[in-house]
Amino acid sequence: MNGSYAPNLYLALIHHPVVNKNGRVIASAVTNLDLHDIARAARTYGVNAFYVATPLEDQKHLIERILAHWLTGAGAVYNPKRRQALELVRVRNNLAEIVLEIEAQGVGAPRTVATCARNNRGSVSFDALRRHLTGPEPYLLMLGTAWGLAPELLTAADFILEPVQAGTDYNHLSVRSAAAIILDRLLTKPKTEIDS
Amino acid sequence: MNGSYAPNLYLALIHHPVVNKNGRVIASAVTNLDLHDIARAARTYGVNAFYVATPLEDQKHLIERILAHWLTGAGAVYNPKRRQALELVRVRNNLAEIVLEIEAQGVGAPRTVATCARNNRGSVSFDALRRHLTGPEPYLLMLGTAWGLAPELLTAADFILEPVQAGTDYNHLSVRSAAAIILDRLLTKPKTEIDS
Repeated sequence: MNGSYAPNLYLALIHHPVVNKNGRVIASAVTNLDLHDIARAARTYGVNAFYVATPLEDQKHLIERILAHWLTGAGAVYNPKRRQALELVRVRNNLAEIVLEIEAQGVGAPRTVATCARNNRGSVSFDALRRHLTGPEPYLLMLGTAWGLAPELLTAADFILEPVQAGTDYNHLSVRSAAAIILDRLLTKPKTEIDS
Repeated sequence: MNGSYAPNLYLALIHHPVVNKNGRVIASAVTNLDLHDIARAARTYGVNAFYVATPLEDQKHLIERILAHWLTGAGAVYNPKRRQALELVRVRNNLAEIVLEIEAQGVGAPRTVATCARNNRGSVSFDALRRHLTGPEPYLLMLGTAWGLAPELLTAADFILEPVQAGTDYNHLSVRSAAAIILDRLLTKPKTEIDS
């Protein structure tokens, strides 16, 4: 049985700026199951909060309607476990707002970590980021929707995490699957560390 | 960078017999994103085939329509990477059909591995199952939809895999997230093994 660290980690699912299939910067639409799956994984692994960033008013309303159903509506009665997960969701306009909000917790601005399905020069390994997470500083892990985070977010991030790779010639996980694997790799304590 | 084993592993997503919230055995409805997310993870980690088991004719037709769009329809042109993943999907009536089909490959009947979010007496650890997968025998990993595999499937399985646990008091991952984490834990080669 594995345990987990209790790191000071935040997640952000970014809907703008991200790129489309052709590499153009867009604002993507919100996917209902992204909210559910990533919130459930975030709650399972002890993440502080799951931010959802979109500047689009109609998308923010959609998210708030989904959340209302599960937090205070019929869904909260039907499935309280889902409520516990979706309580972690915070809808914000953009990354800057999220960084300021975390900084307002009083432990400094978060180190930002971009995720990307491609190899990037100077990326941080899962093992190295695990070690960083044992400290008190807050970290903000950014997940891109559509075809991934826009280049400006990769450039501005304090770290770019190495891609999830499995040794095959195929590397096209959904953001939901990638989020689950990344949290498991970063936050599950190896058995040897539990025993010590 | 991690590599992967090339084990003789098959996945099956079971829609009957599974249990509902109240523990009654049901046939669940197919979820479109289960097919996409789990097929993409299966392709990423080098799984032989992704079986989807349902006895319901309307559900089989739904799956075949989804597959047709991505394998030969507009989706195949729009996103060939999605096609490569969904090519792994095989729709079958039940577990018995799947086991017979794998056995017909000529390498013996697969060892069946049930997955479950709860602790079960005598369950196999991720580490132990990883070691099993280095052999030539085929293994079939069963994932439950709804509230999980029916007790009869757990009882009949050759192994029950230990649950994915992260050390918090919450363990309610989606089947999509659980599938991704399980494949990553079983099929990603530790760096020390790559170096040797």
